[in-house]
Amino acid sequence: VTDDADSGTAMAAALAELVRDLGDALLGADDGLDRFTEPARGRGGPALAVVRPRDVAEVRRAVQWARRHRVHLLPQGAVSGLVGASTPPVDGPPVVVLSTEQLVDGLVVDPVDRTAVVPAGLRLSALECALAPHGLTFPIDLGADPTIGGMVATNTGGARMLRHGDVRRRVLGVQAVVADDAVSVVDDLSTLRKDNTGPDVSGLFVGSAGSLGIVTRVALDLERRPAHSATALVSLSGDEAALDALLVVERVAGERLSALEVLSAPAVDAARSVLDGIDPLGGRPASTTMLVELVGSADVDDALLGVLAALDEGARGSGVEAAVVPPARAWALRHAITEGLRRRGTVLGLDVSVPRPALPTFLAEARAAVAATDGSAEVADFGHWADGGVHCNVVWPDPHQPDPEVVTSCRDAVFAIAVERYRGSWSAEHGVGPHNADWWRRTTPPEVAAAVRGLRSLFDPLRVLGHPDLPW
Amino acid sequence: VTDDADSGTAMAAALAELVRDLGDALLGADDGLDRFTEPARGRGGPALAVVRPRDVAEVRRAVQWARRHRVHLLPQGAVSGLVGASTPPVDGPPVVVLSTEQLVDGLVVDPVDRTAVVPAGLRLSALECALAPHGLTFPIDLGADPTIGGMVATNTGGARMLRHGDVRRRVLGVQAVVADDAVSVVDDLSTLRKDNTGPDVSGLFVGSAGSLGIVTRVALDLERRPAHSATALVSLSGDEAALDALLVVERVAGERLSALEVLSAPAVDAARSVLDGIDPLGGRPASTTMLVELVGSADVDDALLGVLAALDEGARGSGVEAAVVPPARAWALRHAITEGLRRRGTVLGLDVSVPRPALPTFLAEARAAVAATDGSAEVADFGHWADGGVHCNVVWPDPHQPDPEVVTSCRDAVFAIAVERYRGSWSAEHGVGPHNADWWRRTTPPEVAAAVRGLRSLFDPLRVLGHPDLPW
Repeated sequence: VTDDADSGTAMAAALAELVRDLGDALLGADDGLDRFTEPARGRGGPALAVVRPRDVAEVRRAVQWARRHRVHLLPQGAVSGLVGASTPPVDGPPVVVLSTEQLVDGLVVDPVDRTAVVPAGLRLSALECALAPHGLTFPIDLGADPTIGGMVATNTGGARMLRHGDVRRRVLGVQAVVADDAVSVVDDLSTLRKDNTGPDVSGLFVGSAGSLGIVTRVALDLERRPAHSATALVSLSGDEAALDALLVVERVAGERLSALEVLSAPAVDAARSVLDGIDPLGGRPASTTMLVELVGSADVDDALLGVLAALDEGARGSGVEAAVVPPARAWALRHAITEGLRRRGTVLGLDVSVPRPALPTFLAEARAAVAATDGSAEVADFGHWADGGVHCNVVWPDPHQPDPEVVTSCRDAVFAIAVERYRGSWSAEHGVGPHNADWWRRTTPPEVAAAVRGLRSLFDPLRVLGHPDLPW
Repeated sequence: VTDDADSGTAMAAALAELVRDLGDALLGADDGLDRFTEPARGRGGPALAVVRPRDVAEVRRAVQWARRHRVHLLPQGAVSGLVGASTPPVDGPPVVVLSTEQLVDGLVVDPVDRTAVVPAGLRLSALECALAPHGLTFPIDLGADPTIGGMVATNTGGARMLRHGDVRRRVLGVQAVVADDAVSVVDDLSTLRKDNTGPDVSGLFVGSAGSLGIVTRVALDLERRPAHSATALVSLSGDEAALDALLVVERVAGERLSALEVLSAPAVDAARSVLDGIDPLGGRPASTTMLVELVGSADVDDALLGVLAALDEGARGSGVEAAVVPPARAWALRHAITEGLRRRGTVLGLDVSVPRPALPTFLAEARAAVAATDGSAEVADFGHWADGGVHCNVVWPDPHQPDPEVVTSCRDAVFAIAVERYRGSWSAEHGVGPHNADWWRRTTPPEVAAAVRGLRSLFDPLRVLGHPDLPW
């Protein structure tokens, strides 16, 4: 009898126990688990089983089982994350996926309080449907449709973070099951905006990638839907001009500014290629393009014209071309970039941020570094410049097929410039997972890393929660 | 030789060592320490000494000394806190105060990034002076003038939290000296807005009352100063009408709303008594009064008139009386309340929050409970209604002098209604200190309390940081 056979027998017994404890909530290897194991990007590995608890008691039972048998329990929302943190490793220890898709009951919206208590498995789109009749919104605007629990675990940001903050800034309270010896339910589910009664325990779970606890319910600070919005697309001569324009727009638009995105010429080109003849730029040649969105009352169109006039004046004849474009069209261009790049070839998605003044030089250096690494690769960057964020995506147009080592070299070159030269971040909004975990190890100051590992030791001393490849 | 004499000798030796280690930064008992020991409210106790480190190395040396001798080290900013957390206990173990008043060098403002890195001892007013030439502001608006480090330790909110969030939402990074075995410097001083590389270590120090580390530098997310603002004072028939009006104002003012305060009639009366003939209400009798502030471009006055028209229409003849008032005058009324109440007699300041729909009934019950406890007491409430916050202050007009037990009974009655009936908070923005620590013990769910104590065990295992009476 080998060790492998021994551990196989032990695992079979453990799984039998899981069936006994949580049978009704369980899917086994024969149930077709692909949708729980295939990530949005890259490849996934196999799951031993998928548990879909229906309430906090079942979540606790799953965590108790995972602790008893030292099996990794991988919390999973809508599998929309981009760093591989919610699907099993290709090569690694066996994992059981804990899907929150059945944790969807008991949404409470308080329109007078402008808050909601949301079950972790509810999708953002479902929440928005429930909020719309009240004139409310959870203003984290994303291309994907994640669960609220996943948004908390990742701390998503999105295109309107400039105005409304990221998830961390909108979470009022969290209920989470932690993997301490008691398998405690930390119930910090307050809807209060002002509650200064000690350190923020709920905040610990935000951005923890499921490693500090399984979020089961979230209290959120909502916003009123804006009555009107107006958008413009501004063609600029390059990144330096974009940074200048950013400052003009912030100054003139003031409290009305709700989004400011900058798209590189290659990103604009890629987006236009999938828009089927509808060209929001009216046939102008692709150049660095700024999307400006203002919100407000009915006079917001006038306000936008004021912003464009200030840009024109500030540019002193250097050729700013700007046009008011209906919001749906302007955002269609922005949201078509991802599909446009995908059609072009192989895409490496890099999500970085740097201090705003460094954006132009960072991008110039990142493009040069990618070109030096592989002449067939092209940088098609776009992003939330007002927050310092850039999706610095690298594209290999078909039929180029980059070797994995070349992909890694490009990634490391771009990350190194962002972090080491500009004190930037190698994960502006995607979070941490196996795709970028080595960069956490490489760049996190030892005292900060020790603090994060200390948190893990408090809430998950046996290290059973979250992806096995998390670096803390 | 008694134990006392032994410990006296040991303390003398410890202090001699402190003089040796930090002599240049030290003030002794003979140096006139009153300004470090007298709190803004209540009484303070004696300090063994006051250390005023000039850099991080000196902060570390002070923490090392405190650990070695198991002496409480009490971080202190501008002594403007209202819960007694920054001054020595009247009866308690000996403490050394660590004042940050010499940690004022090295402010870095980046106007393009719209961020600043601020030394912990800098005052809010000094920061604002440095930001003004850049058209920037750190938009936490307070009556007091605290240090930035104190604001982080307390997580201050203020009158514009509705728009700009509390300190937690504006802190991008923190550098702190913690009291772990290595006396580590946790350097998480990033100025990035988007940096999703794991749990938020900087956030741990926000609202920790100095118990998890001594904040030495803070990176802040700044705002542009608004170009224009306009304010109105709206007289309302009572709290229910105020809640209705709040919803109308939020809906119509939209993104322009920057403050919404509601003042009770007794608070308005008290404020008017100190305004020396200048009456922002134009002689109207005191009633529930709402202060509305809008910010924006030059047309903000028109926007405010639109809000007032909507209020008038919404009130359907029930007698809303509203007037545009210059901002300085409107805020003078608001800021005169504290002084007006003080002149009236003895004041018990209670800082609570409840979900917004509960504000009118909570206040009615709180007033009834106070009246039932002591017929000579009166509630003069005012506060940040849009955030659910109310300064539910209790006044005993001269010559009434309440017994300490009556004061405690009134406090407990108001807190109990807020917390137990409405899931509110006994400290909306003042933080936690000896004045309210018993309520932390009474109301914090055990799993949340365990989490906070776990954090303390990570960063201050010997329990030498912060006020000795902190409850965690």
